[in-house]
Amino acid sequence: MGIDVQLVGLGLIGGSLGLALRDSPLVGRIMITDHAEECLKKAIEIGAGDEIVSLREGASRAGVIFLCSPPGSFASIVTEIGPVLRPGTIVTDVGSTKLAVMQALSGLPAGVWKIGGHPMAGAETRGIGGADRYLFENAMYILCPAAGTSEEVVDLLAIILASTGARIQVMAADVHDRLVAAISHLPHLAAASLVNLAGRDPAQLMLAAGGFRDTTRIASSNPELWEDILFSNREPLLDMLEIYLQELNHLKKALERENRLAVNQILSSAKRIRDSIPGRQRGLVPGFADLVCIVPDQPGIIGRLGAILGEEGINIVDIEILRVREGDGGTIRLGVPTLVDAERAVIILQTHAIKAWVK
Amino acid sequence: MGIDVQLVGLGLIGGSLGLALRDSPLVGRIMITDHAEECLKKAIEIGAGDEIVSLREGASRAGVIFLCSPPGSFASIVTEIGPVLRPGTIVTDVGSTKLAVMQALSGLPAGVWKIGGHPMAGAETRGIGGADRYLFENAMYILCPAAGTSEEVVDLLAIILASTGARIQVMAADVHDRLVAAISHLPHLAAASLVNLAGRDPAQLMLAAGGFRDTTRIASSNPELWEDILFSNREPLLDMLEIYLQELNHLKKALERENRLAVNQILSSAKRIRDSIPGRQRGLVPGFADLVCIVPDQPGIIGRLGAILGEEGINIVDIEILRVREGDGGTIRLGVPTLVDAERAVIILQTHAIKAWVK
Repeated sequence: MGIDVQLVGLGLIGGSLGLALRDSPLVGRIMITDHAEECLKKAIEIGAGDEIVSLREGASRAGVIFLCSPPGSFASIVTEIGPVLRPGTIVTDVGSTKLAVMQALSGLPAGVWKIGGHPMAGAETRGIGGADRYLFENAMYILCPAAGTSEEVVDLLAIILASTGARIQVMAADVHDRLVAAISHLPHLAAASLVNLAGRDPAQLMLAAGGFRDTTRIASSNPELWEDILFSNREPLLDMLEIYLQELNHLKKALERENRLAVNQILSSAKRIRDSIPGRQRGLVPGFADLVCIVPDQPGIIGRLGAILGEEGINIVDIEILRVREGDGGTIRLGVPTLVDAERAVIILQTHAIKAWVK
Repeated sequence: MGIDVQLVGLGLIGGSLGLALRDSPLVGRIMITDHAEECLKKAIEIGAGDEIVSLREGASRAGVIFLCSPPGSFASIVTEIGPVLRPGTIVTDVGSTKLAVMQALSGLPAGVWKIGGHPMAGAETRGIGGADRYLFENAMYILCPAAGTSEEVVDLLAIILASTGARIQVMAADVHDRLVAAISHLPHLAAASLVNLAGRDPAQLMLAAGGFRDTTRIASSNPELWEDILFSNREPLLDMLEIYLQELNHLKKALERENRLAVNQILSSAKRIRDSIPGRQRGLVPGFADLVCIVPDQPGIIGRLGAILGEEGINIVDIEILRVREGDGGTIRLGVPTLVDAERAVIILQTHAIKAWVK
């Protein structure tokens, strides 16, 4: 049996959610709804849904409705499904800002639970073709219940979402929007501006080093998607931008006045804060230890590294090529679950004549 | 025979340079000089130098002198070695800004060639312990000859440096300093300010996602080192900071006025420019193709991936874990040399039941 769910909008997020929810023991049938027939067909094909339904039919039967279409569509969806929803139905979404969504959902009848949702799984691809059962694994997934939502209902949605592997956090919609303005939307503006400045001189781009590419990676995101996200969170974002300009002006003054102490304090504070961010991947990934090794220029060296450590029962949970050479190999950082693993790995690699050290 | 070189300062850069220069057919003896005896011992031990010499003795014998000590030491080094240098000796350095260095080197006698150098190999470690023969491989290495330096002399230094695998670029010191202000020093200020802003609220850090960590990675660098770098390039940096503030204010106005077109243009321009930066690692690495694969949660999966492709003669030149799960595996991006390799890899992985696609 289980709770029947409806997914509205079968893109990357909807499709991935369908695949993950299939593994939830609480979920019954997965009904899917979309304007695009090919997305629905594909979703059925990959197992992201059991049954294609109209918006109204699904809404009348579902215990939980996930709105995975663009937030601009929510007002008309609310109008259409409002009359057919049963009391106790949970309506949630997957958009990246929450206050505007909660306003749209407030048009739903009383007795329907409105819980905004934001899975923080930035993906490289779009569309059902990129659907990934593990998209949300270890990602933060924020829930923003409307005022008056009972705690048990929020817990139920959190338990249903457990099969996604996401880490659920509950907070108010306005708090959420300020947080993402600071750690996601503002960094976008900062990166775009750095790139546009560098683009004023082609010679600058030629030198663009690893550090610059890291800092500005998010500037390569889809402009239309981000235009929507930024405007959906315009006011908190403007607040953060104002604070950012203050921080930069503070730095500028310190440089102008040759106040080395102030600059050092700013850099030291940033290092302390940055180093305190848990995990390396998305927030709250369990900590792991790093080792660095220098591998000779041999074909298949990455496979060999993995095989050597795999044989000894050491799992590589992260890998980064710090310096790449023309062929294969270079200097590689490996993440392993614990410091003990890292120390063992160093010894094991050394017996294979691979120089390695714990970072 | 060959040209004898002297390395002054045996830290990460000096040690790595010694290891790489050993493979140059043009280089004769590698003389090393440092205040710290343990660094010299370690350098000899790892093969980064042949002979420990005093500053003056080395300078009187060397054909090329690499100053790898902090730029603050150059004035006194210049005074000490000036009288013993033979005409035609090349004196170069490895500091990250060049105009101030060229001023310090201008104190050397006429007849000595002064060529500022900047290997753009940001390393995670410091000290001779991290010395890496491949540190400079594929990195940009800028040379800034003093006015009047003959082209043949610059070419000679470039040929000597060929064994490092670095990509040599020649430019004027003031041009260099503006370029690094834009693509290295300003991004540091931008990242530090983003982190300090996020640090105002611990809840923000808890959510700090992959994008935020990428954007702010450089904020984890050594504050003392960067204080020195920023102040050594203070004026070009202040110019760039001013332009950056203008760019951000332009964005702010567009957001305030709800000018979606202007915001979209800023984001689109940034995407176009960012996407045009060659390579993925440091500047000018030859382009390669990416594929993405989803791997099941099995121990040793990274080794298996590498082994499968290695057997088929496909070299993995880059690897990035896009999403990591508790165990081993997840969604992985692989860089391979060509698009043909990527397409072959996808087919090969699919025969091993590993879902993959070209990115």
